[in-house]
Amino acid sequence: MVKVSMLSTGEEVLHGDIVDTNASWLSELFFEQGFAIHYRSTVGDQLDELESEITALSLKSDVVIVNGGLGPTTDDLSALAAANALGVELELHQEWLEIMTHYFARLGRPMAASNDKQAMLPAGAEMINNPVGTACGFSIELNGAVIFFTPGVPFEFKRMTTDEILPRLKQRFPNVERLECNKLYTFGLGESGIADRLKSVVLPKGFSLGYRSYMPFIEVKIFSPYQDVNIEQVIEIISGELAEFTLSINQPLIGAVGHLLEQNQIHISALEQVTGGEVARGLSLDVNAQKQFVQCVVDNQAQPLSELQDALLISDEYRQDTQSAIVVGSFKMEDQSIALVLISAEYHFAQQVSFAREYPLKSQQILLSTVILDMVRRYLQQTNMLATFSHFDRLAFIEG
Amino acid sequence: MVKVSMLSTGEEVLHGDIVDTNASWLSELFFEQGFAIHYRSTVGDQLDELESEITALSLKSDVVIVNGGLGPTTDDLSALAAANALGVELELHQEWLEIMTHYFARLGRPMAASNDKQAMLPAGAEMINNPVGTACGFSIELNGAVIFFTPGVPFEFKRMTTDEILPRLKQRFPNVERLECNKLYTFGLGESGIADRLKSVVLPKGFSLGYRSYMPFIEVKIFSPYQDVNIEQVIEIISGELAEFTLSINQPLIGAVGHLLEQNQIHISALEQVTGGEVARGLSLDVNAQKQFVQCVVDNQAQPLSELQDALLISDEYRQDTQSAIVVGSFKMEDQSIALVLISAEYHFAQQVSFAREYPLKSQQILLSTVILDMVRRYLQQTNMLATFSHFDRLAFIEG
Repeated sequence: MVKVSMLSTGEEVLHGDIVDTNASWLSELFFEQGFAIHYRSTVGDQLDELESEITALSLKSDVVIVNGGLGPTTDDLSALAAANALGVELELHQEWLEIMTHYFARLGRPMAASNDKQAMLPAGAEMINNPVGTACGFSIELNGAVIFFTPGVPFEFKRMTTDEILPRLKQRFPNVERLECNKLYTFGLGESGIADRLKSVVLPKGFSLGYRSYMPFIEVKIFSPYQDVNIEQVIEIISGELAEFTLSINQPLIGAVGHLLEQNQIHISALEQVTGGEVARGLSLDVNAQKQFVQCVVDNQAQPLSELQDALLISDEYRQDTQSAIVVGSFKMEDQSIALVLISAEYHFAQQVSFAREYPLKSQQILLSTVILDMVRRYLQQTNMLATFSHFDRLAFIEG
Repeated sequence: MVKVSMLSTGEEVLHGDIVDTNASWLSELFFEQGFAIHYRSTVGDQLDELESEITALSLKSDVVIVNGGLGPTTDDLSALAAANALGVELELHQEWLEIMTHYFARLGRPMAASNDKQAMLPAGAEMINNPVGTACGFSIELNGAVIFFTPGVPFEFKRMTTDEILPRLKQRFPNVERLECNKLYTFGLGESGIADRLKSVVLPKGFSLGYRSYMPFIEVKIFSPYQDVNIEQVIEIISGELAEFTLSINQPLIGAVGHLLEQNQIHISALEQVTGGEVARGLSLDVNAQKQFVQCVVDNQAQPLSELQDALLISDEYRQDTQSAIVVGSFKMEDQSIALVLISAEYHFAQQVSFAREYPLKSQQILLSTVILDMVRRYLQQTNMLATFSHFDRLAFIEG
């Protein structure tokens, strides 16, 4: 197995000024391509720390991707740190200097003296082209590892990685096999409940599971060799074990709901007293649902209702007003519980729920809108409307 | 100087499924508090890698924050790795087991067998309370460093860090001086524009600037010694240089708008054709604005308008229907531009804008709703309604 690590440099990353999206982008790409990152670190703009981290990573990995520190300022130390780690001098790469000179000439702008610095690479380094910036990349060999030095600007980094670095890696490591990841989006069960249900599942060779909590879902990830023959069956077994808690596969719930609305040509509107526009936002952003989404009213100062039946009556009136096939809604009840409604011309369903524990208001909106969208899914898939989600207690329901 | 490092664990972080927001949150908080992070690393769910990284960090730092790996599944290895690094066994913390048992009993739900695992801590570890989850934290001492083990769930992590860990650090390192950070939330200028405007500003001793890009704002952060006498003046100078691009200070724009609405007892409704409920969501979640927010209609299939004036007429009618003091709105125009409106009984303002470059739909909604909320702020603060934000070209406007 090829061991790949990544080193991000920069005080702005260490101090939390920026979120390191280059790291998560590279991690996702490299994992799929079979070059899963086994270690990642971040240091500031200190020459000695940079140098020792480069050396340390060269000893624990086969491939190191260094990101940042190639700019023209005095804070940019990656080339010097690389030269020190190698025990060589920096030397001028005439080729890159000429490319930059032509670049600035074409823009009709003088090249700053500091740009010279970006053509100074460790002796013996291989230059790597950067067609969209002034910082060329370069690679060196140290302690048996190949180390790539890349620009911090995301656009330039991604381009260099896909155009130059990945092809070099595939050539150097031709036997690396790419993986596949299939995801079940689960809701309402909790990680320990999921673990309990899956503990007796025996996975085929090369398969493994991962979990990711990302409000409101827990994603159950099935990793496998790319296009393995067992994939369909394993997905079936695992979603079977997780039954009513699996809301969608390989797309978030809203994607599945959007498909169903579009396939069935169902127009939908929403009355959101309690969910603050969260349902509307989901419907408006999904590429399929947005064609089916008619209207939403967020009634922030509506009077709480006393009867669950009232929520149905209000929803039905709105359905006729908007000429929608389905109306969904969230309503405040007098006893602080929430009524969730789905109504069509020939079917109605309303449930009265309260939260099983405390959640911040934003989470409440997200959780409730997830249940609402899931009610649409169940209705259109003609499955059981009554699910037991751990976030909620159900006080009453009406169906007919 | 106290050397603090952070270790994030989890395949989902290494594989790029999530962006490590816990890391950037902690980096930002700790930098302010005087515990700036000097090194950060991420490893997967491999027991030996976790164990050796814990040991390596204990040798290079005084404080280590380990995040993740405390859950109930077989992937969660932080407690075992800690025990191995210390050379001790795991033992059951009866206290935490009882807390969890009561927690599940109160919920009327059985505790899963796998939750037991979360009460197994390294012998000699100090348990750290987690009032909002089933994973207690713990701390150990290794090679002269104190190492805190924290849950990966952001809500739980943040709570534990602020309530339990930071106080312990302040007690252990009483001479650490905290910084103060005052933030200007800027919009519509861009980092190089900001840098240009601020390059001639001379900061007092101990002051420094940082920038953080977080859609839709660029936060300009003014770091200084805590309660330094120069703070007010520096804020004034810098917000003066950034003039119309500073939307709010020390709170996001919606906070400032919420205060203004509440102080002036202004009831507000919104017509959102283009912003998908994003304005409604902001108003419903802010503690002050939510008292003033009446209603929102998201009209997803409305016909595009031909005249800017039409947007004003529709908005005025809605204002009277809802008996709101102000109505704001986003409307589709026939030429693909967007009309943004603010209307009250005695004032009206409408501007027709188009995007200066391509943005994903979700970003478009956020950018437009930011301009809308900023229009409310300008109206209530009685400042210039016409700002020049780099995201937009303004095609026309009406005011009166």
